[in-house]
Amino acid sequence: MPGFVSPSTGCAVRAVLFDTFGTVVDWRTGISRAVQEFADRHRIGIDATDFATRWRARYQPAMHRVRTGARPYVTLDILHRENLDEVLSQYGLTVAAFADEELDTLARAWRELPPWPDSVAGIAALKRHYIVGPLSNANTSLLVDMAKLSGLGWDVVLGTDVSRAYKPDPAAYLAPVALLGLDPGEVMLAAAHNDDLAAARNTGLATAFIARPGEHGPGQTRDLTPESDWDASASSITELAGTLTPPQVP
Amino acid sequence: MPGFVSPSTGCAVRAVLFDTFGTVVDWRTGISRAVQEFADRHRIGIDATDFATRWRARYQPAMHRVRTGARPYVTLDILHRENLDEVLSQYGLTVAAFADEELDTLARAWRELPPWPDSVAGIAALKRHYIVGPLSNANTSLLVDMAKLSGLGWDVVLGTDVSRAYKPDPAAYLAPVALLGLDPGEVMLAAAHNDDLAAARNTGLATAFIARPGEHGPGQTRDLTPESDWDASASSITELAGTLTPPQVP
Repeated sequence: MPGFVSPSTGCAVRAVLFDTFGTVVDWRTGISRAVQEFADRHRIGIDATDFATRWRARYQPAMHRVRTGARPYVTLDILHRENLDEVLSQYGLTVAAFADEELDTLARAWRELPPWPDSVAGIAALKRHYIVGPLSNANTSLLVDMAKLSGLGWDVVLGTDVSRAYKPDPAAYLAPVALLGLDPGEVMLAAAHNDDLAAARNTGLATAFIARPGEHGPGQTRDLTPESDWDASASSITELAGTLTPPQVP
Repeated sequence: MPGFVSPSTGCAVRAVLFDTFGTVVDWRTGISRAVQEFADRHRIGIDATDFATRWRARYQPAMHRVRTGARPYVTLDILHRENLDEVLSQYGLTVAAFADEELDTLARAWRELPPWPDSVAGIAALKRHYIVGPLSNANTSLLVDMAKLSGLGWDVVLGTDVSRAYKPDPAAYLAPVALLGLDPGEVMLAAAHNDDLAAARNTGLATAFIARPGEHGPGQTRDLTPESDWDASASSITELAGTLTPPQVP
């Protein structure tokens, strides 16, 4: 079965790997909901969506310290938990006032994020013709739990605890490519973030933009449109599956 | 959902990982068939089943050299290909008489092995309650291709190119356990080979024996019965799923 040939790499794509937070799952809705439940239980008056946004905002700086070697690799589970403490402090809340297990449970909300409405069906459609998997900054067990809860039918799940590198470090893209026994040009990254796609292209991967204009809520200003000539561009994963799937010969 | 509690580890099992060659797939039938096709195409008169047995017999010695450090880690794909050359030579055939691509294709028959009749359904049944995956000496891409061809619905696929260790090296068992974020006692190895189970138990894993009396053909003498008090014992993966799945409360 001849697959989609990437105009930029010249290769037939064999695997489509997905950024997850924002591209496959809706972290803002899922985290806001978990924070609201936590706040209600503790009778804390906070804006749960603002809390979720601040929590997510600490994601890149925390990974940056690992990327630059300022600290050795630790999993995103650990970074999420550390960042939670910092956001609680921003709100003037005392971390020690909460049981460790309660904060651990809240941090595990990152495993329980709802997929966008098209994600499960789109990935299932692509799976008929391509190897599908996440290419996320999350660790393997987070991704496995997320997939089982949501019904994401990945063929392979390799977290950053395998590559020990965070995107956009080239190793984060090239480690799964090597483990799949493929050339970089045979692997497509599908992502809602232009900077992720730019880094993937720089390491030789094929690229697909998935528009997620609601990722950051109604006021979103970035990543509304593809900012380069990515190999494909779609408004959903089901639409991407239609683009990458050869038409049925009657 | 409370899962099966391992009598030996005292832990509730969260993941069931499978030895693959012999336990999940029938290598003897698959390889014999591929060798027969190759022999027919080249008009070579050989006993394809004997060839398959000899090819498989070189598996442990080849891995042994990696385990002992006599050579650095190389994938099972590479060992299969090297071993093929040696078996051809045993039959007095000149390796150079065949195109490289033809021998590569024949060696890839290890990706295309038929599952035992109960494997796909049994793994699907276990997947409803447990994380399921292979715990094989194969590399990741071999296992991904095998799963896609056969419909094995793994949640996670981590080959020895992730652990860079071959069973029964403890690292081969402990690397996937760590990547799943579990304790060894929360992971069960299901295997048709008593020595594999013994090594898994020594590293703290729960164990299940699956009888595969036809793995080595009609004259099989080893691994016909469980040789220790493994946590579970079954004659098929579907039977194992019945043992490990809590009865439905009406």
